[in-house]
Amino acid sequence: MNVITISREFGSGGRELGKRLADIPGYTYYDREIEADIAKRLDMDEGYISRSIEQGAVMNIPLHFGRTLASPYMLRQQIDIPVEKQRVLKEIAATSHCVIVGRAADVILAEHKPFKIFVYADMQHKIKRCQSYSAPGENLTPGELKKSIKKMDAKRREYLTMFGVSDWGDKKNYHLCINTTGMEIKKIAPHIAEYAKEWF
Amino acid sequence: MNVITISREFGSGGRELGKRLADIPGYTYYDREIEADIAKRLDMDEGYISRSIEQGAVMNIPLHFGRTLASPYMLRQQIDIPVEKQRVLKEIAATSHCVIVGRAADVILAEHKPFKIFVYADMQHKIKRCQSYSAPGENLTPGELKKSIKKMDAKRREYLTMFGVSDWGDKKNYHLCINTTGMEIKKIAPHIAEYAKEWF
Repeated sequence: MNVITISREFGSGGRELGKRLADIPGYTYYDREIEADIAKRLDMDEGYISRSIEQGAVMNIPLHFGRTLASPYMLRQQIDIPVEKQRVLKEIAATSHCVIVGRAADVILAEHKPFKIFVYADMQHKIKRCQSYSAPGENLTPGELKKSIKKMDAKRREYLTMFGVSDWGDKKNYHLCINTTGMEIKKIAPHIAEYAKEWF
Repeated sequence: MNVITISREFGSGGRELGKRLADIPGYTYYDREIEADIAKRLDMDEGYISRSIEQGAVMNIPLHFGRTLASPYMLRQQIDIPVEKQRVLKEIAATSHCVIVGRAADVILAEHKPFKIFVYADMQHKIKRCQSYSAPGENLTPGELKKSIKKMDAKRREYLTMFGVSDWGDKKNYHLCINTTGMEIKKIAPHIAEYAKEWF
């Protein structure tokens, strides 16, 4: 099956691009469904799984709670989540043409020879984009947003090191690197979709 | 006027892409014409100008020939070439929609807000591409080609430092970075042309 993966800087519009690329007839966009599936299989909370995938295994779990060592059961969960994630991603790739944003899918699904996209933008553009998505009352200052964006990207970079990728965002790892600064994602998505078809 | 600039790794197919992008109705591809125009204005040899632009001013000219200092006339030429180059590029950009490959056009024409493309590929792909272009009897070994490719890219990187660019090839400097490994330039060019239109 044809797999398109999107890696992206936080706030660059990678998720929107992913959703729009899935307008290609026959393609499905996978997002929260991945965590929902893992949660169901492991009988765990979906939000907890999302955070774990975002921040990497082990990091979420302190070795001690007060004086008590983390239980083998909790540590076991930390191993199960990445294993299940890989299983879910591979099942998706085996059964449908798909667009997957983040989740180290470009590395995990390497054997499927995905078309790999990296989406980025300049900081000002990312801040503006984040502001436009903020819920009322949740408005952070540009300075705070810049800090959050950098922190999220650092987490993504760190997460990828778990898969042996030490150069997240290096253009050599991708087929197409898209700078969304000053571009309307709605308008560029159809051209990227056409471009990606040439890979398969 | 709309300006598309292409920066590229040696052997990645940037020139072919430039030519094909100029199939966009109304666009003109500028290549050797630039050096020919400079040569005419300065009454100098076109090949000499090409080498000078490729390798950077001053570098071509030793300060001494035997015991004789390089003449002020020769040094003057080294100043005139980059000045004329900038003039020619700006004239082109002012009079026609255009595609310009290399020549630091992305920096020199910054005020025209060009759509900036960077073309790259993995080394194996570039070697193969260079081999396919070699004239009979000029076949270099893959090892020799790899060395030449690296040398050319180092020169391009160094040339750009003359314009204050210390990070040639860094994706943040471009709107679109295109990995041509495993892609047919003939097939992807129309999609890139459509994409570029969204910039203007």
